Amino acid sequence: MERTLIGQISTCEGKSALIKGRVFNRRDLGNIVFLIVQDYTGIIQTVYEKGIEAKVGDSVILEGLVKKDERAKGGYEMKGEKIEIVSSVIEDLPFDLSKNDINLNLPTLLDYRTLSLRHPKIQAIFRLYDLLLKSYELAMREMDFIEIKTPKILGAATEGGANFFKVKYFEKEATLAQSPQMYKQIMVGVFERVFEIGSVFRAEPHFTTRHVNEYIGLDAEFGFITDYTDIIKALNKIIKKMFAIIEEEGQQYLDMYEIKLDAVPDEIPCFKLSEIKKIIKEEYGHEVSEDTDIDPKGEELAGKYAKEKFNSDFIFITHYPWSQRPFYTMPSKENTEETYGFDLLYKGLEIATGGQRIHKYDELISNMKKKGVKPDGLEFYLDTFKYAMPPHGGWGMGSERIIKQMLNLESIKEAILFPRDVKRLIP
Amino acid sequence: MERTLIGQISTCEGKSALIKGRVFNRRDLGNIVFLIVQDYTGIIQTVYEKGIEAKVGDSVILEGLVKKDERAKGGYEMKGEKIEIVSSVIEDLPFDLSKNDINLNLPTLLDYRTLSLRHPKIQAIFRLYDLLLKSYELAMREMDFIEIKTPKILGAATEGGANFFKVKYFEKEATLAQSPQMYKQIMVGVFERVFEIGSVFRAEPHFTTRHVNEYIGLDAEFGFITDYTDIIKALNKIIKKMFAIIEEEGQQYLDMYEIKLDAVPDEIPCFKLSEIKKIIKEEYGHEVSEDTDIDPKGEELAGKYAKEKFNSDFIFITHYPWSQRPFYTMPSKENTEETYGFDLLYKGLEIATGGQRIHKYDELISNMKKKGVKPDGLEFYLDTFKYAMPPHGGWGMGSERIIKQMLNLESIKEAILFPRDVKRLIP
Repeated sequence: MERTLIGQISTCEGKSALIKGRVFNRRDLGNIVFLIVQDYTGIIQTVYEKGIEAKVGDSVILEGLVKKDERAKGGYEMKGEKIEIVSSVIEDLPFDLSKNDINLNLPTLLDYRTLSLRHPKIQAIFRLYDLLLKSYELAMREMDFIEIKTPKILGAATEGGANFFKVKYFEKEATLAQSPQMYKQIMVGVFERVFEIGSVFRAEPHFTTRHVNEYIGLDAEFGFITDYTDIIKALNKIIKKMFAIIEEEGQQYLDMYEIKLDAVPDEIPCFKLSEIKKIIKEEYGHEVSEDTDIDPKGEELAGKYAKEKFNSDFIFITHYPWSQRPFYTMPSKENTEETYGFDLLYKGLEIATGGQRIHKYDELISNMKKKGVKPDGLEFYLDTFKYAMPPHGGWGMGSERIIKQMLNLESIKEAILFPRDVKRLIP
Repeated sequence: MERTLIGQISTCEGKSALIKGRVFNRRDLGNIVFLIVQDYTGIIQTVYEKGIEAKVGDSVILEGLVKKDERAKGGYEMKGEKIEIVSSVIEDLPFDLSKNDINLNLPTLLDYRTLSLRHPKIQAIFRLYDLLLKSYELAMREMDFIEIKTPKILGAATEGGANFFKVKYFEKEATLAQSPQMYKQIMVGVFERVFEIGSVFRAEPHFTTRHVNEYIGLDAEFGFITDYTDIIKALNKIIKKMFAIIEEEGQQYLDMYEIKLDAVPDEIPCFKLSEIKKIIKEEYGHEVSEDTDIDPKGEELAGKYAKEKFNSDFIFITHYPWSQRPFYTMPSKENTEETYGFDLLYKGLEIATGGQRIHKYDELISNMKKKGVKPDGLEFYLDTFKYAMPPHGGWGMGSERIIKQMLNLESIKEAILFPRDVKRLIP
């Protein structure tokens, strides 16, 4: 008999069906046994006579008669006739996966990751993550961006600073990519519009709820922009499209976290950093010193302001200070202390960083000098600018931060299958 | 005026249009100048009066009247009225990008990668690569596989052996993922069907036309298989779907290499390794010793045989020897010297490796012992098998090898934007 997926069980009403899956729960009631079985499409209740051996967690193949049952989850019940235990649990599960909430603290959740991931509510996080990847791919392609893959082992650090991992590369020393920045810019000269979904490595020693040392970046870069507002408009459109797809296809997973996605505005509110600093001081009495980036508390309040005044979960903050942005960021024409670099916050957390880049060779070299960045190992990148790069810019988005914020998870590590932090290399 | 993409220029016939792009070629004929301009959607010929400054390679914004012209490439010509040079070439291009073939040897092609990528015929490779990624994503999702992202910095080497790169991870030593093998198997216990597109790192000292040290793997793993033939069938279906999409959307790029894709058979020919060795000895007089893997020449001949006898560019070779396959490969029931591991060849080159995996804890531990593989650092992986893993298997496919073979490129490095080999870390 062919396998029937539980999600399609209605097609077998009144008939025999063969199901493959995992025993999610078992209840023994006198002469009968209820086995709740899960496959990747759903859950069904089956009823057997007492005496069957299947335990919670076992992989099983079942045959039986399917009937409608309003009381059962999913609306159908199977009267079990045959059961084969394909693979059985040989050690007691360290926690109960059938409870509504798994209720483990973060270290335990992650130490037992290979099992905790089987809990339906944890699964839901990564169902949504799958939709996030899919929606980014779709939205980017719809806007004629070409998907590229750039190297992660590099001859020189892309973002400068000290936050890169070193790799022994045969006889040489190499670094792990802190971003696809230089490569995606080069590719603007080739295809004009490119995007990448790839691993990003940051050797940051932080141990917080919003940092990890390896994550998946959703990058994009495109040319012939008029100014940085073109980038903001494109990212706004992409986010709106992504959230529409996630809402349409993922509501059942959002429901498990009691989340209803609020509409992404056609025009996400947008403030200069200096303006938003003033506002959060006036509105909430929170002060951020003048020549620095905004602090996490400030970001949270900027998010609160966007929600209260514009009913938006998102807010763009633009014109970050020159001193805080990498050498490739285009300085503002009006005020060279500022740049055309921006951040996008979602519910008060930065989820994307972007901006217009310098596209003329002389300006780039001069900006590097001012910043004290040495060109060693970057010659291949700098040379590109001798060959007429169009005005361009783009963004790098942290995929896992979007899911963290969407579901109000306490830590970004909950939104990563096998997260990496200062202390964690395993599992 | 709004920008018109060159690919949509027909909508402006008889009207003025604004075009943004790069000067692909320039011809001066007496009082007039022909500027061929390229954007990411196409190429158009524009005509100006003499005296304009635009050079080959410059980024330009043009305005002019569009008219039909049968003789012009693309069928339209623009009578230029305005021209703005947005960004100009400040150093002579080291080679002519407007010729039909770029004719550079491989080291030069790669040393000048940021420019050679701008050649239309090189661009075509990566247009097809974009379609390859898209088609894999689509085909896997259509078969209900869930996209996952697993870590690339690992506490232990996944495939054993010596071919892994070391990373200094804060105070610890880590390795770069040689495959997502263990993580995708763990995820079968969670979602049953998963796929991943991600970076793979191999510290192989080879310097050949088919090896690189970093590539993009197209991985998949799924559960509740009957045996390894289920995996072969699924991969056959995926390849067929991918090639259909690439042919439908990429013919113009295939044309540049004079390639017509042959139909992927519904059932790709499939032979045991021992059988195909006999065949290539009998048919072509090429001998491979009994207890080893097949050599590159043997693979080539196996591909030749598949083409001659079955008109298939593809051939599956199964039952690789136990001694040649990693510890997680399921040994054959009929002959424990063999496994249910297989390769897929495309035009005589291995593009995928797959197989059924051992799913029972005791068998896995016993196979590891026989192979002398130590469990240190793999405990998190091994523990998963205590919790009833269903019978499962999958494949890892080299994305760039598919494109190399599709276009009959001489080296895999031509199919990678910025390839990494023993000697090459830059660009």
